[in-house]
Amino acid sequence: MLPVVILLSPAARKGIRLRKVIAVLIGLTISIACAGSDITVDGPRLNQTMSSMRSFGGTPEGASTRVAYSDANKEALNYLDGLMREAGLATQIDAAGNLIGHRAGTSTDLAPIMLGSHIDTVPNGGHYDGIVGVMAAIEVATTLHEQNLSLRHPLEFVVWSNEEGGKTGSRAMVGAVSPNEFDLPSLGERSLSVGTRFIGGNLNDIDSVQRSASEIAAYLELHIEQGAILDRKNIEIGVVEGIVGIRRWNVTVQGTTNHAGTTPMDQRADALYAAAQFMVLVRDVITDVPGTQVGTVGRIKAFPGAPNVVPGEAAMSLEIRDLSMEKVGALFDRIEAESSALAKATGTNIRFEQFYESLAAPTDELLRQLIESSSDSLGLSHQRMPSGAGHDAQSLGPISPIGMIFVPSRDGISHAPAEYTSPEQITNGANVLLRTLVSLDNKLD
Amino acid sequence: MLPVVILLSPAARKGIRLRKVIAVLIGLTISIACAGSDITVDGPRLNQTMSSMRSFGGTPEGASTRVAYSDANKEALNYLDGLMREAGLATQIDAAGNLIGHRAGTSTDLAPIMLGSHIDTVPNGGHYDGIVGVMAAIEVATTLHEQNLSLRHPLEFVVWSNEEGGKTGSRAMVGAVSPNEFDLPSLGERSLSVGTRFIGGNLNDIDSVQRSASEIAAYLELHIEQGAILDRKNIEIGVVEGIVGIRRWNVTVQGTTNHAGTTPMDQRADALYAAAQFMVLVRDVITDVPGTQVGTVGRIKAFPGAPNVVPGEAAMSLEIRDLSMEKVGALFDRIEAESSALAKATGTNIRFEQFYESLAAPTDELLRQLIESSSDSLGLSHQRMPSGAGHDAQSLGPISPIGMIFVPSRDGISHAPAEYTSPEQITNGANVLLRTLVSLDNKLD
Repeated sequence: MLPVVILLSPAARKGIRLRKVIAVLIGLTISIACAGSDITVDGPRLNQTMSSMRSFGGTPEGASTRVAYSDANKEALNYLDGLMREAGLATQIDAAGNLIGHRAGTSTDLAPIMLGSHIDTVPNGGHYDGIVGVMAAIEVATTLHEQNLSLRHPLEFVVWSNEEGGKTGSRAMVGAVSPNEFDLPSLGERSLSVGTRFIGGNLNDIDSVQRSASEIAAYLELHIEQGAILDRKNIEIGVVEGIVGIRRWNVTVQGTTNHAGTTPMDQRADALYAAAQFMVLVRDVITDVPGTQVGTVGRIKAFPGAPNVVPGEAAMSLEIRDLSMEKVGALFDRIEAESSALAKATGTNIRFEQFYESLAAPTDELLRQLIESSSDSLGLSHQRMPSGAGHDAQSLGPISPIGMIFVPSRDGISHAPAEYTSPEQITNGANVLLRTLVSLDNKLD
Repeated sequence: MLPVVILLSPAARKGIRLRKVIAVLIGLTISIACAGSDITVDGPRLNQTMSSMRSFGGTPEGASTRVAYSDANKEALNYLDGLMREAGLATQIDAAGNLIGHRAGTSTDLAPIMLGSHIDTVPNGGHYDGIVGVMAAIEVATTLHEQNLSLRHPLEFVVWSNEEGGKTGSRAMVGAVSPNEFDLPSLGERSLSVGTRFIGGNLNDIDSVQRSASEIAAYLELHIEQGAILDRKNIEIGVVEGIVGIRRWNVTVQGTTNHAGTTPMDQRADALYAAAQFMVLVRDVITDVPGTQVGTVGRIKAFPGAPNVVPGEAAMSLEIRDLSMEKVGALFDRIEAESSALAKATGTNIRFEQFYESLAAPTDELLRQLIESSSDSLGLSHQRMPSGAGHDAQSLGPISPIGMIFVPSRDGISHAPAEYTSPEQITNGANVLLRTLVSLDNKLD
């Protein structure tokens, strides 16, 4: 490998033709293994297109409001369609409203490797969530095109529709969008079906976008972390182990409503006091075992809710997330069991009713390793971590190996104007995405 | 004493004149000490008038809705005015809307002993809260009248106005009602000033009802417990040690709002988790010292209050009640101090803002002892206890010795149709009220 490494020194970066000729001389296999292994994107250009995106839905207050199916969303898609065509991609809007740029591979019998993310935002969102992944993917396409680097696999660069409103585009690709969602309101003014038609799709034909397991070779997504793990540790790349699974319950504590003045402490069945002990119990159980699992009580209400009345009922939400659904289940079982003792001790009754479940989507181990080796080749520090937030990648999990690359979010802030990832960090992520793609193209059968 | 006791056997009850003549023979002091010492009310008659009150505001569902200043309230006052007149009382409605029945004493230079309670209810309230004390006081007046028993002190039998809406009538008697309350809505349709005029008073003349400390010799009130202490222990009479003082605070926990999926447990400043620990802390502090103090968190809200968001803020109420304001203060100080350590440990900030204070009103020791000896003379079990709820008696505290007698509330239920005290228990209370009054009339200078 040494001679090839020397050949691929920075000075030779633009000598693609020369390198190819030499590569042929030392053997096709080695050529494919090494072609593009020191390739990098054009960071300033990438950050220029990042900035251009602010003109579609940027607000005077510094936010991005580019909700799915909005005028700004459609205008941004037109802009990206142009960038994709400049990168030599053949573009289409599929029936689910996904913008897809196609690039041919040298092999005609391989399924495509897919790169994607989203450009729709929450109202008053930031400039990075989703957008970094899309702009980096297009920069990867532009770099490959510019350097005339052929890959074996066909490539697809996807801008998924309506991620923030329910991952409509990516879920459509696995046949997970049901017709009764079509008329639901979106985060903007248009319903899913009206909005999809507005941006060029047609939900009546949604079945046409569904793919089978053999039709995607792998899916790669770069995204901002939306948490503070990388930022606090000053680590440049997060190697996502998977998108965590989520289960949510309504928890109801039934006690006895009583006069707060006339009911001695030892005669109370105070539902809110039991709820307080429950919340402490949840924290204790979640943090009692090693791992990255999280458990949250985010919502609470006490009834009747007056300062001078011992609450007879307390209603809470409970959420548990982990990469392993088995672990989520085991943690819940322990919380439920300990709650039973708590209920007895406080003279209350504690009931659980699950109202939401989202299965965990582990990433592919080969992809994780390639992200790590690509980071190493760029001299970037990295760490394995779960994704606590949901992403389009998880939609693809059932039919494709998935891989995700995280770049830091300053202070972990997301879905807000203060969301920030630096130009250098964005370029780092794009370079890891590019090199991972090139290695993957080589490694995959 | 023996000859006198024999003279006062039931058979001699109506021989007041004869007894008086004999009493003069054996000395005036002994006569006064013993006259009425075995007197009892007419229990069936008392419970008959209790039942009659249901026709004023009784609902088909078995509740009483006789809110202050309502038509039912006014009609009930007319009924009671009639009963008072039948009992030989001179009646008036004072400027604050209090119905007062006056009875002369044998001494012309003594301030009156006052007996009272209220007949207004909360909406959908019960048949006993307040009403028992009013009907028992009128039965006491009727019994004294019927038995032609003169007492040294003038007596006043008072039906206080608008107890449930803010103790307007009793507070007026100590000059504690401010003009800016006049236009406040009541629990019913009429404002305080309109309602007071409706029942025969006139708040423009409210100063006329104010009394000084020398103008009331003592105040006695019989009331249902509105708690379950007597009912659970099967004790017939509660000897009230005082009406507890109350302080209430808004407690605000400030943490950091975070994504519940992307924020590791050890990086959270979860305001609701800190609030949970705070509530446990409150219970621990309140129950850590002996006594009858109570502490309650009855209201809570988490912000933003979504299952998938780590709450950045939690707002609670805190209430502490005790007979000693010093103890209330000391308990709060300890809670505040321990909260400071809790805030540090959870990365939050905890603020307290007092929004309500009602001073404790201890009862008079002589009155407590007379209630106990009267109970003993009737063979009734008794126990000293605080009143956790507020009563008209506490309004009078600043200008008069006060005494309160409790009878059991079944299951401690009050302010609800299921409120219940048995006819026998009501008669017990009225008998203790009557005998306490008679002893008090003797003991007081």
